Amino acid sequence: MLRDMCPHRFAPLSKGKIISDQLQCPYHGLRFNSNGQCVFNPHGDGVVPKAAVTRTYPVLEKFGLVWVWMGQKAADPAKLPNFDFMDDTRWTYVKGHIHGSGYYELFTDNILDLGHAAFLHTGLSAPAFTIGKRHVFQDGDTVWSNVSHPNDFISDIMNNMFNSHGKRFDAWTDVQWTAPGSMSLLSYYAEPGTPKEDGHMHTSIHVMTPESPDTTHYFWAFGRDIHPDNEEFSAKLRAGIEYAFEEEDKPMIALQQAQVGDRDIMSMRPVLLAGDAGAVRARRMLRKLIAQEQSNGEEASDQKQSVDA
Amino acid sequence: MLRDMCPHRFAPLSKGKIISDQLQCPYHGLRFNSNGQCVFNPHGDGVVPKAAVTRTYPVLEKFGLVWVWMGQKAADPAKLPNFDFMDDTRWTYVKGHIHGSGYYELFTDNILDLGHAAFLHTGLSAPAFTIGKRHVFQDGDTVWSNVSHPNDFISDIMNNMFNSHGKRFDAWTDVQWTAPGSMSLLSYYAEPGTPKEDGHMHTSIHVMTPESPDTTHYFWAFGRDIHPDNEEFSAKLRAGIEYAFEEEDKPMIALQQAQVGDRDIMSMRPVLLAGDAGAVRARRMLRKLIAQEQSNGEEASDQKQSVDA
Amino acid sequence: MLRDMCPHRFAPLSKGKIISDQLQCPYHGLRFNSNGQCVFNPHGDGVVPKAAVTRTYPVLEKFGLVWVWMGQKAADPAKLPNFDFMDDTRWTYVKGHIHGSGYYELFTDNILDLGHAAFLHTGLSAPAFTIGKRHVFQDGDTVWSNVSHPNDFISDIMNNMFNSHGKRFDAWTDVQWTAPGSMSLLSYYAEPGTPKEDGHMHTSIHVMTPESPDTTHYFWAFGRDIHPDNEEFSAKLRAGIEYAFEEEDKPMIALQQAQVGDRDIMSMRPVLLAGDAGAVRARRMLRKLIAQEQSNGEEASDQKQSVDA
Repeated sequence: MLRDMCPHRFAPLSKGKIISDQLQCPYHGLRFNSNGQCVFNPHGDGVVPKAAVTRTYPVLEKFGLVWVWMGQKAADPAKLPNFDFMDDTRWTYVKGHIHGSGYYELFTDNILDLGHAAFLHTGLSAPAFTIGKRHVFQDGDTVWSNVSHPNDFISDIMNNMFNSHGKRFDAWTDVQWTAPGSMSLLSYYAEPGTPKEDGHMHTSIHVMTPESPDTTHYFWAFGRDIHPDNEEFSAKLRAGIEYAFEEEDKPMIALQQAQVGDRDIMSMRPVLLAGDAGAVRARRMLRKLIAQEQSNGEEASDQKQSVDA
Repeated sequence: MLRDMCPHRFAPLSKGKIISDQLQCPYHGLRFNSNGQCVFNPHGDGVVPKAAVTRTYPVLEKFGLVWVWMGQKAADPAKLPNFDFMDDTRWTYVKGHIHGSGYYELFTDNILDLGHAAFLHTGLSAPAFTIGKRHVFQDGDTVWSNVSHPNDFISDIMNNMFNSHGKRFDAWTDVQWTAPGSMSLLSYYAEPGTPKEDGHMHTSIHVMTPESPDTTHYFWAFGRDIHPDNEEFSAKLRAGIEYAFEEEDKPMIALQQAQVGDRDIMSMRPVLLAGDAGAVRARRMLRKLIAQEQSNGEEASDQKQSVDA
Repeated sequence: MLRDMCPHRFAPLSKGKIISDQLQCPYHGLRFNSNGQCVFNPHGDGVVPKAAVTRTYPVLEKFGLVWVWMGQKAADPAKLPNFDFMDDTRWTYVKGHIHGSGYYELFTDNILDLGHAAFLHTGLSAPAFTIGKRHVFQDGDTVWSNVSHPNDFISDIMNNMFNSHGKRFDAWTDVQWTAPGSMSLLSYYAEPGTPKEDGHMHTSIHVMTPESPDTTHYFWAFGRDIHPDNEEFSAKLRAGIEYAFEEEDKPMIALQQAQVGDRDIMSMRPVLLAGDAGAVRARRMLRKLIAQEQSNGEEASDQKQSVDA
């Protein structure tokens, strides 16, 4: 990935265009190859100055996403979350992207405690999210925040999907967090008393990418194991999810951000409830991994360092 | 009054809803009673943590307004301004609220010098406000900024109200300021040479509540002693007042705020005119009362203190 | 020119109105003469306080523009750029004003390197701007940034103007910069092999006035030597130029400003290309003139000084 800044006049290269595999700067037309090296200067004698290089970041393309390494180290597939289900044809996916106001941990907290669904997303409300049994545990460097609830009703949106209004299910929702902000969310719905694996399983990913100290890119995908070729169903599902994320989660997190400001939310001594165990654990793990990285001298470079380099 | 911040994840409780006399947080559904105590936790085992309390502020409800004590002391009715006329059926009221850009003292200054009317509110222009006799004096901890003018014309808006175009009146306008930003404005119009008390009397209140260092909530009410049951008259009157406040005062004060920025306007050495005597006096009184309060150790708590408490 | 701040309550005088050659403040109606002296106080006894003066700045009106001296010195016609062609009836002018985000030097840089035209303004693209011969030199305190190119095609917009599609010209574009941000841009188009003076000559001015550290007023005029009385031609020409400036230059410079922020762009070590020679030279000259001015004790006054004076 190229740093989004031409080394000539600092125009954003992302506004440029691709010309035969090179990225042309939108302002004065310098062209860069994928190593960030300027390979064409349209002006005057056409000589390309040696310093005409923009920084590149290692990337991996996997699970339908581009993963960027912002620091000094090479891309490391072992650091990716396990999103194997994204490549499994058993599920049909709808995908989306949200840009929201809020520190990215406020967005990960939101998924790690689904107890908010009953209040913020009335259409997604189900007993499991509030009175279900929670099971939070560490698994290597990842954190699981799971909740299960037997023999009860599921949310309206799920009932619409399964045409199962008035039916009871055993339900499990397993969220796995991987640093710094990647989460899988697996939902299982089975006939009461039957094994988890015999029911329906829906998959989703929620990947939070910090853009600034108070804005976040939120990439999501939702996979269903029914109606694989039904585009109308896909469109309705996407609209329902986008409503929940854009109109319910995003405004609430923006309000939360306005109250928290530039403080670390933990410094405000939040009252902790059962549902916060996952967020607390993930936060602790993230701090530990950051401390490890810093003690190894692998600090992420900030913009200033890049420019001065 | 409850602090607008849930102690769990700091969501604004003002976005929640009332459920059987309890305020339910919009994010995770904790419910609080009027003492700020969380009394219901919908999650897991439902145990309510002891620390699940949000700060409350003493309030008094009087004169159609809710008065909040933001500091450590109990609500004290003796500190309220004298707005008895608000409860008097002699007057019929229209009311409103404005949210404006500007330090709240810029809003109080605006009422304490009505000399701006002739220039900013051409419909409210009357000789009294510019060439009338001013009388500014202290009355306990309050400040009066009065102006009177005999045997002259009154403003178009008042003429429309009284159907009195071309008629002369003796006119008095008495503004009383009470710390920190509450003002009554009483207007008297009498046949020339007759006593003040024999004429018409209109009442209004102008209450400025600081929201931030550069934004203010402006609550107003205007009482007339004519056409008590005429709703069409009320609607026209409200529209006229809202026009003056929203379209004339508010933009001007926002421009003033932009020029003054975060400076104390007095540090910019404003040229003082006759009309500024009330504002200068009120400002001095306010500084004195703040100093007294601080020397008594009754500093208003700021957000940070509340959060850390 | 009057400072845009009433000395009474600091309202912006620019929102006032002219009443018999005096400028009336929009808030309380003080009136000022062209020396900045308050000459009328409508309030009370009408006495005008001695301190009721707003600062004035020397101005010159020339070339259809008002030139302001913001410092302590008198207006000096010798410091004006040579825009004599603005008063010459040989050219018919269209004029405009743009308000943009960006430090004013980013706007002058944009004109001093027309090499951006081929990429940012496809309608203005011509070989001269990229592969033409550049000639940059100092001329007193001004800087010329010229480019010439023989026997080649000119831009579509120019072809539309001359009805000359498919024709070749010898082309010259001469930009002269005068501190701090005034530029003339003279374009010559002649039959190949004929003298510069025998062809068409178009004139334009590009005057950049800093409003704040990150916003600029951009005043422009474009003169043509054809179709002097054709209003439809004028309207089309103005629309074409406004499109280039408003829709192409302005957004690009705003993006550049967002990347550069409050840094001096040179501190970011930009890669320098042939086209940057003019901007580098002008920048050096500007720094030299500022240093001279400061060593002469002629610092420009900032707002704070004015207010405290």
